[in-house]
Amino acid sequence: MKVAIIFGSKSDTEKMKGAANALKEFGIDYKAYILSAHRVPEKLMETIKNIENEGCECIIAGAGLAAHLPGVIASHTILPVIGVPINAAIGGMDSLLAIVQMPKSIPVATVGINNSYNAGMLAVQMLSLKYPEIKEKLKKYRKDMKEKFIRDNEEGVEL
Amino acid sequence: MKVAIIFGSKSDTEKMKGAANALKEFGIDYKAYILSAHRVPEKLMETIKNIENEGCECIIAGAGLAAHLPGVIASHTILPVIGVPINAAIGGMDSLLAIVQMPKSIPVATVGINNSYNAGMLAVQMLSLKYPEIKEKLKKYRKDMKEKFIRDNEEGVEL
Amino acid sequence: MKVAIIFGSKSDTEKMKGAANALKEFGIDYKAYILSAHRVPEKLMETIKNIENEGCECIIAGAGLAAHLPGVIASHTILPVIGVPINAAIGGMDSLLAIVQMPKSIPVATVGINNSYNAGMLAVQMLSLKYPEIKEKLKKYRKDMKEKFIRDNEEGVEL
Amino acid sequence: MKVAIIFGSKSDTEKMKGAANALKEFGIDYKAYILSAHRVPEKLMETIKNIENEGCECIIAGAGLAAHLPGVIASHTILPVIGVPINAAIGGMDSLLAIVQMPKSIPVATVGINNSYNAGMLAVQMLSLKYPEIKEKLKKYRKDMKEKFIRDNEEGVEL
Amino acid sequence: MKVAIIFGSKSDTEKMKGAANALKEFGIDYKAYILSAHRVPEKLMETIKNIENEGCECIIAGAGLAAHLPGVIASHTILPVIGVPINAAIGGMDSLLAIVQMPKSIPVATVGINNSYNAGMLAVQMLSLKYPEIKEKLKKYRKDMKEKFIRDNEEGVEL
Amino acid sequence: MKVAIIFGSKSDTEKMKGAANALKEFGIDYKAYILSAHRVPEKLMETIKNIENEGCECIIAGAGLAAHLPGVIASHTILPVIGVPINAAIGGMDSLLAIVQMPKSIPVATVGINNSYNAGMLAVQMLSLKYPEIKEKLKKYRKDMKEKFIRDNEEGVEL
Amino acid sequence: MKVAIIFGSKSDTEKMKGAANALKEFGIDYKAYILSAHRVPEKLMETIKNIENEGCECIIAGAGLAAHLPGVIASHTILPVIGVPINAAIGGMDSLLAIVQMPKSIPVATVGINNSYNAGMLAVQMLSLKYPEIKEKLKKYRKDMKEKFIRDNEEGVEL
Amino acid sequence: MKVAIIFGSKSDTEKMKGAANALKEFGIDYKAYILSAHRVPEKLMETIKNIENEGCECIIAGAGLAAHLPGVIASHTILPVIGVPINAAIGGMDSLLAIVQMPKSIPVATVGINNSYNAGMLAVQMLSLKYPEIKEKLKKYRKDMKEKFIRDNEEGVEL
Repeated sequence: MKVAIIFGSKSDTEKMKGAANALKEFGIDYKAYILSAHRVPEKLMETIKNIENEGCECIIAGAGLAAHLPGVIASHTILPVIGVPINAAIGGMDSLLAIVQMPKSIPVATVGINNSYNAGMLAVQMLSLKYPEIKEKLKKYRKDMKEKFIRDNEEGVEL
Repeated sequence: MKVAIIFGSKSDTEKMKGAANALKEFGIDYKAYILSAHRVPEKLMETIKNIENEGCECIIAGAGLAAHLPGVIASHTILPVIGVPINAAIGGMDSLLAIVQMPKSIPVATVGINNSYNAGMLAVQMLSLKYPEIKEKLKKYRKDMKEKFIRDNEEGVEL
Repeated sequence: MKVAIIFGSKSDTEKMKGAANALKEFGIDYKAYILSAHRVPEKLMETIKNIENEGCECIIAGAGLAAHLPGVIASHTILPVIGVPINAAIGGMDSLLAIVQMPKSIPVATVGINNSYNAGMLAVQMLSLKYPEIKEKLKKYRKDMKEKFIRDNEEGVEL
Repeated sequence: MKVAIIFGSKSDTEKMKGAANALKEFGIDYKAYILSAHRVPEKLMETIKNIENEGCECIIAGAGLAAHLPGVIASHTILPVIGVPINAAIGGMDSLLAIVQMPKSIPVATVGINNSYNAGMLAVQMLSLKYPEIKEKLKKYRKDMKEKFIRDNEEGVEL
Repeated sequence: MKVAIIFGSKSDTEKMKGAANALKEFGIDYKAYILSAHRVPEKLMETIKNIENEGCECIIAGAGLAAHLPGVIASHTILPVIGVPINAAIGGMDSLLAIVQMPKSIPVATVGINNSYNAGMLAVQMLSLKYPEIKEKLKKYRKDMKEKFIRDNEEGVEL
Repeated sequence: MKVAIIFGSKSDTEKMKGAANALKEFGIDYKAYILSAHRVPEKLMETIKNIENEGCECIIAGAGLAAHLPGVIASHTILPVIGVPINAAIGGMDSLLAIVQMPKSIPVATVGINNSYNAGMLAVQMLSLKYPEIKEKLKKYRKDMKEKFIRDNEEGVEL
Repeated sequence: MKVAIIFGSKSDTEKMKGAANALKEFGIDYKAYILSAHRVPEKLMETIKNIENEGCECIIAGAGLAAHLPGVIASHTILPVIGVPINAAIGGMDSLLAIVQMPKSIPVATVGINNSYNAGMLAVQMLSLKYPEIKEKLKKYRKDMKEKFIRDNEEGVEL
Repeated sequence: MKVAIIFGSKSDTEKMKGAANALKEFGIDYKAYILSAHRVPEKLMETIKNIENEGCECIIAGAGLAAHLPGVIASHTILPVIGVPINAAIGGMDSLLAIVQMPKSIPVATVGINNSYNAGMLAVQMLSLKYPEIKEKLKKYRKDMKEKFIRDNEEGVEL
């Protein structure tokens, strides 16, 4: 497992699938966990330890409301933590601010509201620094994305 | 000690004095701690344990930015936790939302931005449920406050 | 009756049920009232007096828009008041600010938008300071919550 | 006295002077009161009664933060109440929302943040419906304002 | 006609009915106009003149988005203008700010977002200063409202 | 005169100078006017007529708070109107929304808060469609800007 | 072709039709392109070059979220660029701010959220400076709009 | 060079020093560039190419207002891009949203407003995946940080 995906409730499963989808496209092993910073803090810490021991290199954490999960994880590991603000109220602004405004020294790499796919992509980019085969796939992914975009839209659009 | 006051940095000392001032007015014992949910999470947990063992009955926690401290404390204790959003950016809205929007089951009793005095008063009110002498002081405090307000303003105001 | 739950309109009944549900889990007696700070201010004051005389120890108040109800109640009692911002416009931000930003000396313990369950839990925590049997139930509640959370999610999640 | 100006703290005196200045320009009698909806609610109600008995026709109320004062006054009188949101935090947005978002049936006529002069002008306009001499002055005021504006700027401006 | 109700589009008719309903309850004559500050500015000015000549005493104006209508009307009349922010985007915050933040000297009496009923009530209150029969009705209205509220809720509520 | 710059108060002169500066760089004739949509609406309309008669081709309007000036001008002319939101409260968000959220058919070309220079540049771009010499200057301006930027920063920066 | 309409995804086609509709009313030739500043930046630049070579005089660009498209286009052309903020999250506020707050020298003429029709109208106004026949049509359009508005509403409205 | 730090103006140098300071603590080579996505887009693209050729592994980009720089860089490279929102208006909310709300596939790892130090730390964490010596330093840094925090605060704090 290279990436752990953690979120706080089964009800967020659909919103977090994007992260898994991005990792699947690159053949990167991941595991998903439902864990809450507030309800099972000890289990969360224990799991972070296990995750580190299994060689995990990056953690993606999604949360809504007063979204502490990514920041709490970041305080217990030196692995890079990617935070996904989930919209559960006021358009997700509470979650975005509770994730991105971390204090000095303990960053969380924050992506857009509900944009778990980009969290997966960011994990891919981080891993590509170390793994040349991921880097190659990433180059191809971008190239393919461009070509597909151009192909899909080459007939233009009728307004 | 009946109340613990916890905040994340010496630089917030002035902003948190209000909590202590309210408690002093009622002769309630308190202790203050500088502890960070992100920088010293283990020390925070250890201190919460000690605080509970010393018979503390209520915890006041102040934090700015992605203010996780009150919520993290609440996840490790069943004591009521009072959260003070401290303005460190965008008027303190990040801190207010990161404190008040706690998930189901783990509340933080949130007071106004930078209003640590009210956190102290809320602790007084909670303790007054158990301690009749505090309840009596509280009644007197309110009565005095009203009389003082009326006295201070009885000459009216020149506009 | 240990807790009074007050809100301004029958239409908010569903949103305030969470408070009652939390109290029921702990076997705490409560009564619910529909009262408006703006429409029946005298009746509200009279009811607060009665509530106090009946030995009520904590008041939960829910309101939307320019949500004055919790603060007005707090100005007429020394009992701790817990405020629930109800979303009736702009995501509930008007209500949250109108409840949490109370002036010095008269706090309202504010919980998250529409999160009346947490208001109930906060009342439980306050009462647990005085009533050892509630404290014991609270410890068990947390322990059960943790165990249930872990049990519910032990098979992991498929992303 | 035709207009009462009420606000919650001596520290807001400067910000509320605009209301008095507008009334002075029209020779309208007013009285100013420092009264708090939260600290001295009974005194506030008593004063509203007295104000009504003295023949007051309009009440201007200024408040900051969770600005309940105008709405609470409106709930105790049928006189029109004009609310001035005072900026004490987050640019005055808390105060604006806590004043303007009143429930059905109990309006507060809200003016701009810190704009107590416009509260005075609004009182003038309301009174002008009944008092022809104020109406005449109002016509002249507008005419003079226009002429003065044009005169002041007739030389143009150098950019 | 004592009150004119002006708004910019047939599509807002439903949202503005509250103003008419409040006036009807008090038997106050009103006329409604669809007029746009931006599309037919000359017609708007002409109509304001006519309205004044017909003895109208108060103007209610509802608008959404960059809601200039109430302010533009206020600049062409000395009658009190009541503004109703209509939610057409971002929860109505654009409209609220575009109506309430008027410059010094030209106020608009602003009510809550989509709350046209309160605009009607505010007009009633203004007119009650001059017309004793409206004042009497207003006293009765409040009394009835209170009694009805208490009657409707006297059986309490089941949570 | 090709461009008119209109704003509501001498106190905004400094903030509007950027518009003039941009026009000066391109040798485009402009005239500045202090005119208020709310205080002198008739004078404003008269001036717009004159401006059109003098052959003006574009109008820049700056305003703060409930910034109606640009939209009101746009309703009286078919010339393109460029709006500059001026920060006078809550960071200029009131002004931005009151300018940009114009209804269908009557647009205002809005630039950034306090960014009157960009309003001038936008006027230059509009005029360049018609005047080849301005287009040439614009090409040179961009080229010079790029070269200057690169020259100014070619030594790099020490962090 | 006089106007190019560019947006980033087929899913925004409906929201951008307003721009085309406005241009059609004036018989102005336009072409629409789906192009992304982030996915196909090189293709975007190439297309801007082609658009310029084909004599295009104005570019309309619509985008949501971190809406860079209009600003990126503006950095590659001296043609005036009109930006349409599309609401894809938090009411479109992210998109509005990402479009309107351009740095000094590179403006984007921003219209209201989702208001692509006004973008088309603004293009018409810009082109009318150069093309007298468009100017005539614009005068007629305004006159017709006014007459239609008055005709449509001349029977008044029943509230 | 392992990390490139790019920002748009000399005036932001102080605000971006935090990124360099974090990298210096870990002995990581970096270079700083002043480059603007809007003023010198070609130079920016050329520099990104050069940076990649020099073996750079991560790019930190800081920008204010409509902060396109990080997103534009991300669209031209597959290296991970870390975005620092700089507060230049409305508390930095424009910049935060313009950086974090990137579309699917092209993420920017966003840190808190003005928090360039955390951008540096995030780069360190990313590089630590590949470079064991950085990982060791990171472990020591966290350990030292904890010990220093505890030492600095072991005498407690006087409130």
